[in-house]
Formats: sequence, structure tokens, C-alpha cells
Amino acid sequence: MIDALYIDEMIRNALKEDMPLGDITTDNTIPENTQTKASLIAKESGIIAGLDVSRRVFEILDSSIAFDAKIKDGQYVEKGQLIAEISGNARAMLKGERTALNFLQRMSGIATKTNAFVEKIRGLHATVVDTRKTTPGLRYIEKYAVKVGGGSNHRFCLSDGVMIKDNHIKAAGGIKQAIEMARKGIPHTIKIEVETETIEQVKEAVDSKADIIMLDNMDNETMKKAVEYIDGRALTEASGNVSMDTIYEIALTGVDIISIGSLTHSVKAFDISMKIL
Amino acid sequence: MIDALYIDEMIRNALKEDMPLGDITTDNTIPENTQTKASLIAKESGIIAGLDVSRRVFEILDSSIAFDAKIKDGQYVEKGQLIAEISGNARAMLKGERTALNFLQRMSGIATKTNAFVEKIRGLHATVVDTRKTTPGLRYIEKYAVKVGGGSNHRFCLSDGVMIKDNHIKAAGGIKQAIEMARKGIPHTIKIEVETETIEQVKEAVDSKADIIMLDNMDNETMKKAVEYIDGRALTEASGNVSMDTIYEIALTGVDIISIGSLTHSVKAFDISMKIL
Amino acid sequence: MIDALYIDEMIRNALKEDMPLGDITTDNTIPENTQTKASLIAKESGIIAGLDVSRRVFEILDSSIAFDAKIKDGQYVEKGQLIAEISGNARAMLKGERTALNFLQRMSGIATKTNAFVEKIRGLHATVVDTRKTTPGLRYIEKYAVKVGGGSNHRFCLSDGVMIKDNHIKAAGGIKQAIEMARKGIPHTIKIEVETETIEQVKEAVDSKADIIMLDNMDNETMKKAVEYIDGRALTEASGNVSMDTIYEIALTGVDIISIGSLTHSVKAFDISMKIL
Amino acid sequence: MIDALYIDEMIRNALKEDMPLGDITTDNTIPENTQTKASLIAKESGIIAGLDVSRRVFEILDSSIAFDAKIKDGQYVEKGQLIAEISGNARAMLKGERTALNFLQRMSGIATKTNAFVEKIRGLHATVVDTRKTTPGLRYIEKYAVKVGGGSNHRFCLSDGVMIKDNHIKAAGGIKQAIEMARKGIPHTIKIEVETETIEQVKEAVDSKADIIMLDNMDNETMKKAVEYIDGRALTEASGNVSMDTIYEIALTGVDIISIGSLTHSVKAFDISMKIL
Amino acid sequence: MIDALYIDEMIRNALKEDMPLGDITTDNTIPENTQTKASLIAKESGIIAGLDVSRRVFEILDSSIAFDAKIKDGQYVEKGQLIAEISGNARAMLKGERTALNFLQRMSGIATKTNAFVEKIRGLHATVVDTRKTTPGLRYIEKYAVKVGGGSNHRFCLSDGVMIKDNHIKAAGGIKQAIEMARKGIPHTIKIEVETETIEQVKEAVDSKADIIMLDNMDNETMKKAVEYIDGRALTEASGNVSMDTIYEIALTGVDIISIGSLTHSVKAFDISMKIL
Amino acid sequence: MIDALYIDEMIRNALKEDMPLGDITTDNTIPENTQTKASLIAKESGIIAGLDVSRRVFEILDSSIAFDAKIKDGQYVEKGQLIAEISGNARAMLKGERTALNFLQRMSGIATKTNAFVEKIRGLHATVVDTRKTTPGLRYIEKYAVKVGGGSNHRFCLSDGVMIKDNHIKAAGGIKQAIEMARKGIPHTIKIEVETETIEQVKEAVDSKADIIMLDNMDNETMKKAVEYIDGRALTEASGNVSMDTIYEIALTGVDIISIGSLTHSVKAFDISMKIL
Repeated sequence: MIDALYIDEMIRNALKEDMPLGDITTDNTIPENTQTKASLIAKESGIIAGLDVSRRVFEILDSSIAFDAKIKDGQYVEKGQLIAEISGNARAMLKGERTALNFLQRMSGIATKTNAFVEKIRGLHATVVDTRKTTPGLRYIEKYAVKVGGGSNHRFCLSDGVMIKDNHIKAAGGIKQAIEMARKGIPHTIKIEVETETIEQVKEAVDSKADIIMLDNMDNETMKKAVEYIDGRALTEASGNVSMDTIYEIALTGVDIISIGSLTHSVKAFDISMKIL
Repeated sequence: MIDALYIDEMIRNALKEDMPLGDITTDNTIPENTQTKASLIAKESGIIAGLDVSRRVFEILDSSIAFDAKIKDGQYVEKGQLIAEISGNARAMLKGERTALNFLQRMSGIATKTNAFVEKIRGLHATVVDTRKTTPGLRYIEKYAVKVGGGSNHRFCLSDGVMIKDNHIKAAGGIKQAIEMARKGIPHTIKIEVETETIEQVKEAVDSKADIIMLDNMDNETMKKAVEYIDGRALTEASGNVSMDTIYEIALTGVDIISIGSLTHSVKAFDISMKIL
Repeated sequence: MIDALYIDEMIRNALKEDMPLGDITTDNTIPENTQTKASLIAKESGIIAGLDVSRRVFEILDSSIAFDAKIKDGQYVEKGQLIAEISGNARAMLKGERTALNFLQRMSGIATKTNAFVEKIRGLHATVVDTRKTTPGLRYIEKYAVKVGGGSNHRFCLSDGVMIKDNHIKAAGGIKQAIEMARKGIPHTIKIEVETETIEQVKEAVDSKADIIMLDNMDNETMKKAVEYIDGRALTEASGNVSMDTIYEIALTGVDIISIGSLTHSVKAFDISMKIL
Repeated sequence: MIDALYIDEMIRNALKEDMPLGDITTDNTIPENTQTKASLIAKESGIIAGLDVSRRVFEILDSSIAFDAKIKDGQYVEKGQLIAEISGNARAMLKGERTALNFLQRMSGIATKTNAFVEKIRGLHATVVDTRKTTPGLRYIEKYAVKVGGGSNHRFCLSDGVMIKDNHIKAAGGIKQAIEMARKGIPHTIKIEVETETIEQVKEAVDSKADIIMLDNMDNETMKKAVEYIDGRALTEASGNVSMDTIYEIALTGVDIISIGSLTHSVKAFDISMKIL
Repeated sequence: MIDALYIDEMIRNALKEDMPLGDITTDNTIPENTQTKASLIAKESGIIAGLDVSRRVFEILDSSIAFDAKIKDGQYVEKGQLIAEISGNARAMLKGERTALNFLQRMSGIATKTNAFVEKIRGLHATVVDTRKTTPGLRYIEKYAVKVGGGSNHRFCLSDGVMIKDNHIKAAGGIKQAIEMARKGIPHTIKIEVETETIEQVKEAVDSKADIIMLDNMDNETMKKAVEYIDGRALTEASGNVSMDTIYEIALTGVDIISIGSLTHSVKAFDISMKIL
Repeated sequence: MIDALYIDEMIRNALKEDMPLGDITTDNTIPENTQTKASLIAKESGIIAGLDVSRRVFEILDSSIAFDAKIKDGQYVEKGQLIAEISGNARAMLKGERTALNFLQRMSGIATKTNAFVEKIRGLHATVVDTRKTTPGLRYIEKYAVKVGGGSNHRFCLSDGVMIKDNHIKAAGGIKQAIEMARKGIPHTIKIEVETETIEQVKEAVDSKADIIMLDNMDNETMKKAVEYIDGRALTEASGNVSMDTIYEIALTGVDIISIGSLTHSVKAFDISMKIL
């Protein structure tokens, strides 16, 4: 699902970052051709993401390593559950351990966090999406982890989605003008989203045929009015410090989409250990 | 303090990740030569780290942008405090905003978290250090942020420090043998650390002239005994799921060093906003 | 308008391709500090695109070279008209000449060709757009040249637009299913286009709420019927070997968009010479 | 014949340009392990070049794809003729289609155009060669395509051939001086070519022992006189807007070499389609 | 022992440096699928290093080439002895010959030179180590060759070892201050070395708890006194134009380590030829 | 004379190799804005090469550093002579010292060695040239240093010169055939050299119109006969373990060119020190 074209260079760089000159402990204490086995074990419960990335870490170090995943990305594991078995050259396994876990733990942390939000509003209309508040260099795999956790993706970057904010509106001379200027300059395959903070702005955005209207930092009552006013003429997105405490009420307003920066900017690494046998 | 030699490529890659083909909103709505000003404002209280990285983000986009930092890395800011003023080309400022914040918020989050641990044991002997559980690709700036927060760094990678673990000991035939094999193979400028889980292992490590002895997941009582036994013959490092609740008691055992993976693997982004005027 | 972030590496690679080891003619016959001037002269009439790229070629070779563009990208020049004056180090100017022209001539060729199509249907409703049939490595500047010539851009790549073709439909089990599968998997900021060859497929696409319907290789009569049937419920795109001879009749069918592969895949270099004084 | 060492990185970059983040249509509508077959079919008649490049595009995406070329580079195909059969993973085939064709169509376009010139003067003495007017980044494969089409290569770049032009002569103080300066500075394995526009310059070039004399933009009569004067004492090269209408007469002047910029700078993509079964 | 992770890019760059556009001799005279065999023969006696690097050169050019090493890195060969047999595609073997030998001869030259120093002081206490006076870009394989030759490595770079010199001492305000400042700023896994030129400085270094004391350009008598004074309280390193004529006497002073820049900065290529059969 | 286009990346890589994570000694002991001056002093007599490379090392670290070269590349310096004065930021100067010297000492070593050979045969006809036996990654600057030392360059690589050896001849079916095959496949701007070991081969090479004939490992008497036989019909190159002891006699044979591998494969670093004031 994640193509080697995209991740091999990222993994190679991560491995070189962690051992620019070999692993001086392992290279000096473990005989060159020692074979061993290891298990990846969940040390808490949650959703796993990043198995392909972990596998590639070991494969890049030694193409003969066997990485036998016991589950698939997106699956829920219980604390103590076996995630994967790895067997092959001991040196390569010790060298890859930390890098493989750094990827897997971060991605699983994102998937697990996303899933918690998704579950919290299960049955309601809204979709949980991410933002551009990702770790520099890891956006692709972090957005992938959000999807694995049951969320959806917002635009990937500044080049593939339009988000008209305050400053664009001022510079353009109004929401209508900004939308028109954008529409003229972008591919016809891309929608236009406008950020609004008041009902008045919402009305102007609807009048200007915005495809998506972000309701930014509105209280739930205002948000509900906005959704009612828009009435399907545009997609609606709730935004602004959404938390596990607030998401349910937000979803009840009827918005289509709830975007959550903390899915990727404030992540607890999912606890996984690699036991070498 | 952070040399452009190390961060320019990282920043360029982050910017290309966020706008491989320009910012289609800004490029279509903001006139090319519009000038503006912006403020970076702390939205919570804590320690700031990464000002040089943020500055470079804007400079790389437009060398004429002025980034006027009001504080220095390592300084404590109150919620609402002005961190920096930026002025120059409006397009460049809008394009760089998210990337600059992604770096600055993560680094400040690490510095603030580190500082909380450091303050918790202020007056006691122990030093707070990081681990290799960093974000792939960002180890350099994350370890820098740990220092900015008042912590110290553990080895940077597998190539510049020796950490003899269980598997190395088994393969080598014992702690003594592993240390000897490592000592023979590494530069004389590098110390040797051995991971121990029992007092017996601690004794063997001391006998084998380990420079540093990691006390891994020991209870505080055992740890205290270990420290007393070692009695300055090696540096001691406490390791294993150290938290704000446990660090004080750990430090009381007398260990020299307390290493904490969560300083970098589970970080809450420090809340900072960029207000464009 | 074209950010150095995107083109510097491309230019550096082009220069290294053309002189991996210096210009052995110039380095051996022109004294190191010789200063000179040169003019870029149009040798035919048309639209110029790529002045920023040409300028950067010389700047990268010698930052003190002055490149004084007499026109802007998108402007029409007559045969014989002065495009730019360049002055500075003679060696750098001779070394950069071919590379600067290779970019400028190709980009101006694309802009001029695009403009001819645009002019051909001036006053009619349709918009001229490009395709992904671009030169590997140059898509960004080629799509830029299309816009300079008065055209618009189709999706940039496989990652930022959905185009459901025959094979996707078959694998998904129908147009409706394919659209639903895509809608679920993509960011909400991206529209969905479906390729159709018959009126039946058009109807199915409309029923399935496609945002854009490509009318692929239809004769003009069928296309007209399709446009009438769709009646604004989706954007319409005519596609398939559009030429200067056929575009006017195609535009008369009422389609919104006409995509033309030859804008970028079959380009005549615009004739420009650099006269060194 | 084209070594992977040279083209893999170029292809990887082309693929990343076309799908920095996957093919969002294919990834969402085609099941991961779907197998399929496809045919590359010539939609016009001409010379094919670039089969190895096309093959590598698919192999890089999925090493298990089988690319069964039915012809070899340089072979003439009729409209409708089968060029290659491809079988394997459907996703990889759909993802690689456009990139593989972009390479193959451009290279075959160059080979076919070159071949037309070569055939036009078949039986005469002159050799058709290319120039440095190639697409930035693609010089290697474009010059390869010229050879596949029956032409020969001029110097590859500024570093591996000497071409003394007007400006070099002026700066050096004369043809003789320029040649001497160049001869002294270059490897003994490289010949020296001088650009001339008049018979007087030709005489001076011969006297100065130029290895190759370019007859630049001369009328055919002057060119014939030049060739007679030179009489084998140097290779002769005709240059300057050579077209299908003029090449035969030019070749009749007896020149050894005819260089043609449009072989690479103004290319019509050779029409090839990939039919997925 | 040398991981492909570290050397593949270096080898690819070396091959591209030597044949950016193919081997025009071989490509034009040797049929594409010719198979052949070759032998690597020592043309002098000494220690071989770099077999893995040589093997990779050929493997990167053609993965089906068989490289059958008859010895291992570190083994002594007599003049005329067979080092390895290579068989496979003739073109690839001819293309890789020079690059493979350039690596192997340099690395074996370093190993042989190092070994001569090591043998010269066999039985004495001191260890021979290298310096940072390596060839830019090749430090990893050059330091590897030193170890193959029986030497040890000094710090790899400025980032993984501390060496306090004159200028650092002056800026810090004294040896003691410099050591303290360094100790505070570096990982606890790294030792501190101080450069001294007089007995007074040695004393100060000992008092300041330097881990390693470099005795820089001291005469042997002074060095002996220094070693005696230090008496095991720090490691001692002799430094300064050590030669085969002087090393024995230096080692007799009792120093622990003797560092020799010429091991890597002044190397005679070890003579090896590749005989193609 | 050496363009930044070619060397900046090489220097950046060398600096990152030497301080992937800063200079932990300097960063911790020298205040950030300390200014200082330094002198580059020759510690032996010879020819200096590489001043531009050394300058760039410091400029890349800190663009405000002033590097005031007191001599030019190619100039002879006496032991103790001042080569350059450097002033600026102390940290940058200490960080760049070793890398700048590693380049400058190697390049000056090559220039000095080359010059010794050139002087040895001053007044005789032959030219001293280098080979492809260069350090991987440094061929450009090493061949530059050979020219600075008064030598000339042989072909740069396998792509820009033809050298027909034994194996090519056998595969092609004879010298004549090999030359014809090569001539047909290469640009007309490149000469053809043939390696010969006997007078018979020399005769065949002349008959086949080789441009250059290498006399490989011939004794001087045979070489003289070969030169006489060739009598100006081709350039002649003596090759094979040329030393300071043998070059004069070789030059007396009348050969045009003497190629010497040791100019670049076995170099003694030229002793230069950087004194910081």
C-alpha cells in the first residue's frame, strides 16, 4: 500500500542518521553471520500502522531478512499481542531495531489517536481529517497513518488544495474576488475552501460558490447555524483545537468534516518492543 | 548555534514537501510584491527552541525577509508573549508560515518538556538526557532542543557511542568479553556503556571496567544499591519509562544520568501562532 | 513568479549536464575576467515564457551578471525584437548561453503554441488545458508555460486529481462504484473526473455525481449531445487529438474544457538567438 | 545498451514527478494484487527508440512486471504494429503508463525524425549529427535516440569537444592563437573545431590546423568552395537551420557532417498507445 | 563488513565520474553479451583491503557478475598472488576495472602502510591510530583500511570526539575551563582529549581530569617524562610527523597511542592488475 | 578557474563528513562571535594548487570570512612562505581548517609531484600527462592540479576519449576493425588511441589510422623504433610505471606524451599548516 518508490530514500536517510559509520557496538561484539529471531510485541492496546515501513528498514539492511507480519495495518492489537516475527542476520536486526520502531511507534501512535476520535463520533455524520501540521519530512507516512486509523486526509500541501484565509481575502478585495482569482488560476480538478469566522462570512462564501467552507473556531451554536444556513450548498469543515472532550458536541452540529491538528502534531509514541531471542 | 550547513537541506525538503508546485491559493490571490508584517505569539507558556530554523525557513523563501527574534532559544515565554516579528514579502511569509511553525512548535515542545523534567529534579545530582527515540530525519534538531531545554544529550547514534546490551553480551560470551571486544574495535575517544538489570550484572560491569553502567528498569531500591556499589567507578544511568511522577524518586537514588525516551518520542507541539497584520 | 526553490536544482543539473568539467573552449581562450554584453533577440514572432529561468542560469554561473529583461513572460514579441540584455563576465555568459536558450526556447515554444489554440477559440466558452504528456523532469515549467500562453492547467500529476478510466471502472465494478471508492479515499478538496466514450457512460457518470466528465474521442455531434445532457451538472472536458484544424468546431459543442497533449509533447522550439557584442 | 546506472535516477525522478503521493485514482479503485496485461501499439509508422527506458519504468515500480519487447530499438514499425507486451500488477502498470510513454514517444519521435533526414541523403557522403540543443536533463537519452535513428553524435557537452566561435577568436586574437591556446589546454584525445562564416576564415582555419571546420550558415555555393579548398585537410561540418527541404542540396556540397538542431529541439512525439486488456 | 548502505552511493558516483555517458570504446567494440573472466593479481607484497568495495563496483554495473575473492581483507599477499577471480559480462568488467582498482589499490596501500608501522612496534605497548587527514569523501573506507592493516581509529570527525587545542584553551581561559565547558556540552559517552606541548600543560591537563592527553611534537625524553607523570591517570597519545624511522623510539616512551597522519594523507597505491582472459 | 558549480557540493559533503553534528570541541569552548586571524604557511617547498577550493571551504561555513591568498595556484613557494591570510569568525575557521588543508595539501602534493616530472624533462619534446588512476570523487580537482603543476590531462573518463586495448581488439577482430567500429560510434570530435606492445601492433595501428598510439611498457629502444616508424602519422604516448629515474630516458625516445599514474594515485600530501593567531 506504501510504495517503495516513496519510502526507500526516507528509510535510507533514517538509517544513515542512526549509523553513519556502522553500529560500533554490534560490529565489534556480534559475529558477522550470526542468525537470530525477534518478535515485535505491543506493549499497549491500539491500532498498528507502518508495518511496510518497518519491513523495509530491515530489508534495506539485509535483503535476506524475513519479516513476518502477524497482522495488517489498521488492525487493533491488545497489549502483549505479537505484531510480527523477524528472522535473519543478527547484526542487521540489531542495527535496524531502533529505526524500525521509531517509524512504527510514531505511525501507530497517530493511527491509534485518530481512531479514538473516529470512535468517539461513530454513528454521527462527520468525518475526521488531518491537517498540514505534520512532522517535516514525514507528511506522506503520517497522512497514511491517519487513514489507517480510520480518518481521512485534508489537502496534502499548499499545491493541491485551495484554502482562502483572511489575508488572501483582504489582498484580493473580498471573498468573492478571492474565489474568482483562485478559480481562474488553478486546475479545474481542485475545489476551493474558504475560512470563515462569522455567519456573515459564511453567507458571503456561499454566495461566492465556495466548494468547502471552514468554520474556524466557532462555538457550537454558531457552527450549527452556519451548517443550517449552508444547507448542503458547500461542504462544511469544523476547525480549531478539537479535543476528545469537544468532538462529540462539534459533530452534533452537523458539520461534514472535523479537522484536528493534534492527530499529527502531538503524538504519543505507541509502545512496542522488539524482543530478540 | 545551528549551522546552515546542517539545516538548509532539511528545510528545503520540508518546503518542497509542503509546496512542490507553489502555494496555489497565495500565488493566485496575493499580488507578487505585497509587503506585510507578522508576529509569532506564544499561545502557552514554556521554553522556545528553534528560532534559527524558523528564520531560515523564511530566508530560504525570500532572502530579503527580516526575522527579528525578540527572545533567544532557551528563554521562557509567557502565554501571549511576542516571540518574533517578521516583515517582508507577503507571499513568502504565507508560504513559509506552516513549515516554520511545524519546526518551531515541535522543537519548543521538546525544550519545554525537557525543562519540566529538569526543574523537577533541580538541586539533585542527576542530569536529564535524551535517547535515540527521535523522529527519523530530525535527530539533530531534536537533540539540540533537548539541550536548549536544559537537558544533555546521550550518544547521537550507533556510530558514536557504545551500548552493550543483552544480545551483545550473549554473543560475546559475557560482559567482560563484550567490553574487551568493543574496546579493541572502537576509537579510544569513546566510552563504553553496559546495560544491566541486576546487581550481579552491575558487579560484573564494574569488574570489567565499563565506563558507564545503565541501570535498566530497576526499582529505586535496587538502583540505589547499584549506585552505592559502583561508588563512582563508573557513571550510572537510570533508564526505563521515566515520567514526571517518578523522576524525583529516581534522582534521589544518586544516579548520574536519567535518560527519557518521551522527551522526543511523545511530544506535544508547543502552541504558537503567526498573526499576519 | 517561478520560485528559485523549484528551479535552482533543475538548472544546476542542466548546467552540469552541459559542462561537467568546464567549457574547455572558453576556459582556454577567454581571459578569466573579460566583461561583455549580449542581447537575446527573437528570431520569430510569438509569446515569450521562461525569462526567470534564463536569468537564473546566468546568476547561478556568476551572481554578478545583470540580466535586464525588456519584456515580461506572456508578452508577444515581433521577429527581431529585443527580449533581454545581459552583461557581465564573458566566460559565464558563453557557458550559460546554450542552457539558458534551451529552457527559454522550449518554454516560449509551448507558450506560443498554447496561445495559438487560445486565440483560435477566443470568444467561445471553452478553456484550453494541458495534459500529463510533458517532458520528464520539466513538468512544472512546461505547465507554467501553458499558463503564460493563456491556457489553464489540468491536474499536475496522479496524486492531485482523480481521473477514472475504463480500467478503473472495470476493476471497481462500474462508474458509480469507482466514484464512491475514490470519494472515500481522497481528500475532500479534490474533484473526481470520469472518462466516457458514449452517451450511456455520460449518463451513468452524471447519475454517479462525477464532478467532471471527460468526453473522450467523441465526434462533435455526440459531444454536443453529451454537453446538453449534462447541462451544467458536471464540468465537461473534450479530449483526443485536438488540433488547430479541429478545435474551433469542438469549442462550438459547448464543452467547458479542451485538453491538448501536443501543447507539451510536440513542441517547436521558439527561435531565439543570443548575440554577444 | 542504455545502462541502468544512467537512467534509474532519471526514471525515479520522473515517476515521483508524476505521482509524488501515489496514484489516488488507481490506489482507491484497483485491488492491490490485480494482475493484467497490456500492449504497446504504434499509432503511426516510424523508428522506435527507448524500449529499455520504458521497461525500466515498469521494473522500478514493480520488479515482477514482465516487459516483452517485440522489436528492438532502431527497428521500423508500421502503424498498428505491436511494440511490446507487458504483464503484471495492474496498479503498477497504470501508474507507469504515462511516464513510460512520455519517454518512449519522445525518443521514438527523435529517432524517426533523424531517420527521415538520414534517408533523405542516403547514398551521399555526409553524416547527420545532432547538437547541444537538447532538453535539459535528457541529453543522454536524446543523443542515444539520434544514433538509434541512424544519425551520429556531435560533442556531448562543453567539456568533451572544442568549438571555437567568433567570440573565442576575438578574445584570443585570431583563429591561429585560439587554436593554439585550446590545444595547449585540452587533452590530446580531443579534436578542435572552428566555426567559420567566410572563405577567408576557412583558409585561416586550415592554416591553423583545425581538425574540424564548421561552415556556418553559408550558402551552398560557398560551402562547396570551402569543401574544395579544405580538400580533406580537416573534417567539414555544415550548420544552420538545416531542413528536410535543404539537406539534400547541402549534402551535395561534399561536406562530411551536417548538424541539425531540430532533431532534438523541435520534436513531434511519436504516437504510441498502451492498451490495457 | 562494509555495509552496502554506506558505499553504494559512493561507488555509483565514482562510476558516473568515470563514465558519465558510457564507455565509448567498449560500447562500440565489444558485443553486448560477451562473457569473460578476469583475475586480480597482486603486483607487490602487502595487505589487501577493500575487497567488498571492489565487488560492489562490478555488482552495481551488472548484478550477475561473480566476484570470487581468494583471500579476505587483512590478509597478506605475495607479489604475483591471485586476489580474486571475476567472471561475467565483458562490457561491465571492462567498465568497472579502473574504478574497482582505484578503490582497492588505495585501500590496500593504506592497509599495507599501516601494517608496516604496526609491525615496527610489535611487542611494545603502543597502538597505531589514524587522524582526520583523510581524502575528502573517503574517510569511512580509509579508516576501515587502517583497521584492516592492524591499526586503530582515532575519532572519526569533529562531532564524535573532543580535542582541546591551543585556541580552545585560550578562548576558554585555561585547560581546566575548556574541559569543564566541553564536559558540560557533550554526551557523557565521549571522552575529552587535550593537546599539550609542555610538561606544565600535561600537569594542568591531568589536574583538570582530561581523559586523554596528546603529547604534541615533544621530543622523546619529554614524552617519557610526561608519560611517567601521567602514570595512567589519562591515556597518552604521541603526535607529530611520526615516521618509520622514529616510531620505535616513540613507542619506547610508553605512550598508549601513536597517531600518524601519513597513514591516509600520503599513500602509495598498492600495485594490483586486472588480467582479462 | 575552478567554478563553484563543480566544487560546492564536494566541499559541503566533505564538511558534513568531518562534522555531521558540529564541532563539539569548538562549539562548547569558543564564544559564538569570536573573531580571529590565521595564516596558511608552507612547511616545505613546492607548487601550490587548490587555493580556490580552500577559500570555498571557509566561505561555505561563513560567507563573511576573508581569505586573502598571497600567491596564485601554480606558484612555487619556499618552506616557511605565507600562502594566505584568513580572518573572520573563529568557530568557522577552526571547523574548516582540516577540510581546507586536506584539499589544499593533496592538490599541492599533486602539483608539486607533477612539476618535478615536468622539470626533469624540460627542454625535451614530451608532455607529462595524467591517467584515470585518480581518487574516486576527486578526479576533477586532481586533474586540475596536474595542469597547475605544468602537466597536461589525458582523457577525463571513459566517455570522452577512446582507448582501444587488447580486449577490444580481440573482440573486434583486429586493430583495424576496432578502430572502424569506434570511429563509427563516437562523435567526430574525439580522437582514437590504440594501445600497442610490439612494433607489429604499432604498424597495424598506423595502417588503421589511429590518431594516437600508446607504447605500453616498451623498453626505450623499442619505443624509439616505434616513434621513428610512426614518424608523425599519429601522436605517441609512452606508458607504464614511469618514475623520476626513468622519465628522462623515455623522453629521449622522442615520444609526444608520457602518462604517469603515480601523479595522482601515489601522492605525498604537501605539508601546510594553519596557524591561528
